[in-house]
Amino acid sequence: MDLRGRSYIGWANGADGGKEFRAVNPATNAAVEPAYTSALPGEVDSAARLAAQAFTSYSKFSGKEKAVFLRVIAEGLEGIADALVVRVNLETGLLEARIRSEAARTVFQLRFFADLVEEGSWVRARLDRGDPARKPAPKPDLRSMWRPLGPVVVFGASNFPLAYSVAGGDTASAFAAGNPVIVKAHPAHPGTSELVGDVIRSAARECKLPEGVFSLLFDAGTEVGAALVRHPLVRAVGFTGSQRGGRALMDIAAARPEPIPVFAEMGSTNPVFLLPGALTARGELIAEGMHGSVTLGAGQFCTKPGLVFLPPTAEAKVFSQSLARRMAESQAPVMLTPQIRASYSGQVASRARQSSVTLTVEGKSAGSEPGVRGTPALFTTGGREFIAQPELSAEVFGPATLLVRCSRKEEMLEIARSLHGHLTASVHGTEEDLREYRELIEILEQKAGRLVFNGFPTGVEVGHAMVHGGPYPATSDGQSTSVGSQAIYRFARPVCFQNFPPEFLPEELKDGNPLGIWRLMDGALGRD
Amino acid sequence: MDLRGRSYIGWANGADGGKEFRAVNPATNAAVEPAYTSALPGEVDSAARLAAQAFTSYSKFSGKEKAVFLRVIAEGLEGIADALVVRVNLETGLLEARIRSEAARTVFQLRFFADLVEEGSWVRARLDRGDPARKPAPKPDLRSMWRPLGPVVVFGASNFPLAYSVAGGDTASAFAAGNPVIVKAHPAHPGTSELVGDVIRSAARECKLPEGVFSLLFDAGTEVGAALVRHPLVRAVGFTGSQRGGRALMDIAAARPEPIPVFAEMGSTNPVFLLPGALTARGELIAEGMHGSVTLGAGQFCTKPGLVFLPPTAEAKVFSQSLARRMAESQAPVMLTPQIRASYSGQVASRARQSSVTLTVEGKSAGSEPGVRGTPALFTTGGREFIAQPELSAEVFGPATLLVRCSRKEEMLEIARSLHGHLTASVHGTEEDLREYRELIEILEQKAGRLVFNGFPTGVEVGHAMVHGGPYPATSDGQSTSVGSQAIYRFARPVCFQNFPPEFLPEELKDGNPLGIWRLMDGALGRD
Repeated sequence: MDLRGRSYIGWANGADGGKEFRAVNPATNAAVEPAYTSALPGEVDSAARLAAQAFTSYSKFSGKEKAVFLRVIAEGLEGIADALVVRVNLETGLLEARIRSEAARTVFQLRFFADLVEEGSWVRARLDRGDPARKPAPKPDLRSMWRPLGPVVVFGASNFPLAYSVAGGDTASAFAAGNPVIVKAHPAHPGTSELVGDVIRSAARECKLPEGVFSLLFDAGTEVGAALVRHPLVRAVGFTGSQRGGRALMDIAAARPEPIPVFAEMGSTNPVFLLPGALTARGELIAEGMHGSVTLGAGQFCTKPGLVFLPPTAEAKVFSQSLARRMAESQAPVMLTPQIRASYSGQVASRARQSSVTLTVEGKSAGSEPGVRGTPALFTTGGREFIAQPELSAEVFGPATLLVRCSRKEEMLEIARSLHGHLTASVHGTEEDLREYRELIEILEQKAGRLVFNGFPTGVEVGHAMVHGGPYPATSDGQSTSVGSQAIYRFARPVCFQNFPPEFLPEELKDGNPLGIWRLMDGALGRD
Repeated sequence: MDLRGRSYIGWANGADGGKEFRAVNPATNAAVEPAYTSALPGEVDSAARLAAQAFTSYSKFSGKEKAVFLRVIAEGLEGIADALVVRVNLETGLLEARIRSEAARTVFQLRFFADLVEEGSWVRARLDRGDPARKPAPKPDLRSMWRPLGPVVVFGASNFPLAYSVAGGDTASAFAAGNPVIVKAHPAHPGTSELVGDVIRSAARECKLPEGVFSLLFDAGTEVGAALVRHPLVRAVGFTGSQRGGRALMDIAAARPEPIPVFAEMGSTNPVFLLPGALTARGELIAEGMHGSVTLGAGQFCTKPGLVFLPPTAEAKVFSQSLARRMAESQAPVMLTPQIRASYSGQVASRARQSSVTLTVEGKSAGSEPGVRGTPALFTTGGREFIAQPELSAEVFGPATLLVRCSRKEEMLEIARSLHGHLTASVHGTEEDLREYRELIEILEQKAGRLVFNGFPTGVEVGHAMVHGGPYPATSDGQSTSVGSQAIYRFARPVCFQNFPPEFLPEELKDGNPLGIWRLMDGALGRD
């Protein structure tokens, strides 16, 4: 298709007059055509109004109907796979294998949520049967289930142009729950966003969905996003990005006359604790895995391990040397955007200037290679120095990590206690190590959404048991996950029907359980 | 027991030096001994530190152990039932029957949550089994469950001195989830709070719980509560009270360096829609029920129906006259506190002065009867006037309600669309009415946590299907409920364990399901 460079406001395209911007190809530093036009304030308002209108009908769609919609989107994405490879590469510098695997993940997520809502038990149906004869007052018939929230605003992520952007996990779970979605496209990959947006819009029309169930807004800056979060008809926000950006949206939402939930996944530093026995048993393997995890995707994953805590053993030294050697041999990869590279280089330079931190080794510099490249960096500091400088916990988005040499077990525990919230925390150890460091596991449970044993945090499985969340500042809401089937509950709420006549109850709550879903009946789970 | 008038900071009692205050007996206007001493800033900090320490062990208690604790509290409350009747009456003016039924509800809630965590399936255990042979990358073994959040601050409510105060629903659900609780006692019933607090402290010692699992802080003003919500070791807040108070806590929590969730139930006006057929069929019965619901507990329930929408029929007029007659015959009841009465009288007077609102009838004035009394009031306005004055939607806490005469069905729908969030919305209608007003039901589903058909919103059942929540401003978080078993999730979060050795997994997630709980295994629910 020809890219038009305009927002989608329901079935209509955006008007002239907004500020223009272009993507930059990070592999060449060249601007990418066409120009994209920022949405106008009136278009933000129209998208929100259309979404609120669409909600009145879309919220009543059955699980089966929503599943069809999600699957038509998935199929549509498969149909433009080759076009996506070209465009995503042009706008992000990502290579074909990664783009195809991310596209497959995106399609998988859409079908995963389709299956979830088609099966239907996700709604948490609960029935407490009444007793008109109860004294002193009759017991009412109460039936509740989770229903959609209303228009959801989704912010596309820079580092997942497909899986956490226009048709990504936030959009899939919001649609699955029964909400219209307004996507604010990430300005780094507008063409990718338009291609994917066109697939969603076509699917919505094919499935005869109401106009406004989907809009896609472009913006060179932050005004459109802020206006969406402020809009009185918007009911929730999904965001994946920086802590600064996420917190700004949280603050806007909290200051509204009617505050709304913001589910912001703001990245983290993903501490990894290497215990003595594991380093003795397989230090070299851990170094190899760590190097792979730190440099995967140029270190631009929110689960990149950015903090590695070492015990005071000889094997820890051998591990450090092995990791340093691997980092030194690393090429400087193309990063996603000039802004991300500038921020990365700035953080590396500033950290290198700190007297208590050593820049142990840098990877190969880009030299004359073209494009926006970041040089891998390995830093080292001591346990006391780490505790004294909370800023060393901050995420450095890019292929860098910090080794922290602890002087004893108690120092490692003290450091663990001082950590803020992270998406993940990992421990490499033998079972004997774990017994010795049982307290560490207990502390880390308070600090992260996912605890990884003898593995690396990159690679977030889409499934039922996944938790991609964690205490602030990893996310805005540590009671939520943005990956896996529980992500759907971000965009739903419980509603109770008291003494309702059967005709007016949702199918999920009717006598006889016509949908055959799991329900809690007077406290007992069953499917009858 | 002798009341000491001091806070409980873990096992210790509060010190001298804080501002003193006394409860007021609203039936006599007399101060009630003893004096209570406000907690000092250092005591707030101690309570939070002790709670954080206690969390490290209490969070690991099994469901069975927590159930024992909750049941010992319940038994302890039953043991002081007579003392509670005396003291609650002295501090609130509530009469014995109400006190005994509220005490029974409080005890029921504690045992309800005890049963819930003893059974254990509430944790939402999910297991996605791994596949080491999967290509291109092995599939990890992922297991997740909901775990407690950390120290929870609970604010006692003025209108439920037992069921939503020191050992009320917030405390019971927070304990059940595995969290220490710090209660900020409501200053209107400090003696009641101390009696109940003593039961909890004794139960904690009897069950050998860690010090700090429970603290109880008194305060004449709002400083202690604000300091608790600001304290970095506090992880969540439960509150039942006014919109102003709840929003103030929300704003404090949102402005923290690490924001925390505030679950504030801030009351609501609980709109009731009377449809033509129902008024024809049983207008007199509805008037009787409405009068009972408006004046129950002197109108001091968060589910009191404060807005009644009428169709333009002759039967609606008959209904209005019947309700007016009943209101006119109502005695002026003793209200909970002089502050609540002053606020109620002020709101009634100010509403009576509005030109577009008629004070249709007042109940009998208190005359020379002693105590803090509020005269029941019935107001009437038109649909257009209601739409033009959003302030008419505000909650008037006390025995008053507002009749809104709509001129046609479309006006009723327009009004419904304009409503903000409420805890409940009720509809009285025949099945034919409902068919005619189907759109009304759909609109109201967006506006409330619970929809009541042919009933009154007062009377909140404690069960699995109950939702006592609703969109802002009814609550701070419309995705939560403060009554019923789902209330436990306010104080828990999902945690995922990846590739963990069995020995270090919680019992709930171990192979073979040793606890026999319901688990989602590779997407299928089961108990094997």
